[in-house]
Amino acid sequence: MAIRIGILGYGNLGRGVELAVSKNDDMELAGIFTRRDPSTVKTQFEGTSVRSAKELEDGKADDIGVLVICGGSATDLPKQTPHYAQWYNVIDSFDTHAHIPEHFAAVNAAARGAGKTALISCGWDPGLFSINRLYGNAFLPDGADYTFWGRGISQGHSDAIRRIEGVADAKQYTIPVESALEAARSGKNPELTTREKHTRECWVVLEEGADIDRVTEEIVNMPNYFDEYDVTVNFITQKELDRDHAAMPHGGFVLRSGKTSDNASHVIEYSLKLDSNPEFTGSVLTAYARAVARLAAEGKQGAFTVFDIAPAYLMPQDGDYLRAHML
Amino acid sequence: MAIRIGILGYGNLGRGVELAVSKNDDMELAGIFTRRDPSTVKTQFEGTSVRSAKELEDGKADDIGVLVICGGSATDLPKQTPHYAQWYNVIDSFDTHAHIPEHFAAVNAAARGAGKTALISCGWDPGLFSINRLYGNAFLPDGADYTFWGRGISQGHSDAIRRIEGVADAKQYTIPVESALEAARSGKNPELTTREKHTRECWVVLEEGADIDRVTEEIVNMPNYFDEYDVTVNFITQKELDRDHAAMPHGGFVLRSGKTSDNASHVIEYSLKLDSNPEFTGSVLTAYARAVARLAAEGKQGAFTVFDIAPAYLMPQDGDYLRAHML
Repeated sequence: MAIRIGILGYGNLGRGVELAVSKNDDMELAGIFTRRDPSTVKTQFEGTSVRSAKELEDGKADDIGVLVICGGSATDLPKQTPHYAQWYNVIDSFDTHAHIPEHFAAVNAAARGAGKTALISCGWDPGLFSINRLYGNAFLPDGADYTFWGRGISQGHSDAIRRIEGVADAKQYTIPVESALEAARSGKNPELTTREKHTRECWVVLEEGADIDRVTEEIVNMPNYFDEYDVTVNFITQKELDRDHAAMPHGGFVLRSGKTSDNASHVIEYSLKLDSNPEFTGSVLTAYARAVARLAAEGKQGAFTVFDIAPAYLMPQDGDYLRAHML
Repeated sequence: MAIRIGILGYGNLGRGVELAVSKNDDMELAGIFTRRDPSTVKTQFEGTSVRSAKELEDGKADDIGVLVICGGSATDLPKQTPHYAQWYNVIDSFDTHAHIPEHFAAVNAAARGAGKTALISCGWDPGLFSINRLYGNAFLPDGADYTFWGRGISQGHSDAIRRIEGVADAKQYTIPVESALEAARSGKNPELTTREKHTRECWVVLEEGADIDRVTEEIVNMPNYFDEYDVTVNFITQKELDRDHAAMPHGGFVLRSGKTSDNASHVIEYSLKLDSNPEFTGSVLTAYARAVARLAAEGKQGAFTVFDIAPAYLMPQDGDYLRAHML
């Protein structure tokens, strides 16, 4: 029987999940659930049903196998994931690393209380990058970790620029420094500063009459976001921004280098080169939704993360097939 | 309480496991078990105890938590792993891909019958590369796989050369072709032939009076091993071979490229650059031995592979720690 996926929220990530479900034959879409008027939502596939988010309350949408919650980490997910875990098996992409423990605790309590299964903080970071950090530490306990992000758009940094007075719009690319990547790959476990690892490239549209020098100064000196980095600021028109910077590429690198003896060093490298951050994240969420459905079927209740999921749970085939074809 | 590791077989891989146990504080070595006279075995660490393999019979070595079986895949492991699974939790690095299903069945039957836990075919390929092939397929179901090996010594190909009449010794390096790697990284899902993906580089020591042309012909035309590849054959002295080709580097690349929509392609790349194949493989086996100990403690019986092991089982820390520090 197909796994029935519900999608809550129809922004870029929800659209990515809709695409991913279409690529997986063992799944079908129960619907997009939206807080908007369903009749106003135009989906990517003609057959996709759009339903009101109200239908989710009190567990009324009982045809859902796993609900993929596609809200934002700042304000949506801390409320939504525990709320819907009362009634549904759920998965989210909560990505505020510092608040994962409290989010886990809240979702775990809700899911356990209801006998449901939940998986939080799924995507590529947190998610696949986290798994690779863990694997690297397990296989090379005597070593050093490196994570590089980009080249890609950082939503948080783009938003920070947009909050500056006189800025109409902006996009910020995080770019790994090639020489730092090469140093990490050398296996010599170099110490790399924040400034050495990444540069930041800003594309800014000014409001009419804004002071270009003041805006530049405010960007490059912004604490935490920019002051520890080498920053390039480019001013362009809204038309240019929309034409040249509308795509959402991203990616990055996780490296672990370490020794097994005085004479033997090793380097493990994992990298992603993504044309579309939300489409890839949606695809990862969808594979893990399969694992959530399996765990639920086995009666495993409460909250989990990618660390708790054996790789085999991500694939539709059984163990015999996987051992014969993929091992 | 520390996990007590037994090592059966003290070749390069057994020595790698001995080193790896020394890097993991939650483990201790119960001993090296050998078919040789234990008094003749010189270990890497002074305190390592060397015991007779006979002590393993009938489960007499009951201080062992997990027995790491470091035999060869051709003749040792098909007998040893089911045999010792009668009495011990075991792990091996059985790497003959085509025979994994029957090895799994034999080990599974033995371990289940005895209420023991076994993990087979652990290392980097099969092992970490297998996990990455599976992850790639799960996250990008509409795509293509690429595995490249090297630069590194292939034991099987080196042995094949040594069997040729007139050859005293040989080492064979498998080398990925850079342009093929770049094609795989392009995200365009190219079809690559065997010849396009790898070259083979041979370093051969001739016996006195051997015919250099005949040996060369026999190598480059050897079916399966060399005939489908571009092969370089170099003749050197035993002294040069011992001096320049004694190390056991290896590594390789697993790539998955695929689409989430018509407009978005993605590339996932995993790579290993290893100074010492047996030391790294020993380190991977040791991390998975921890998982075997955990599964055994949970009462999970029978045979497993890396596909069945959730990442968290590889680390000594608990879920709270891993979520706070690695997710």
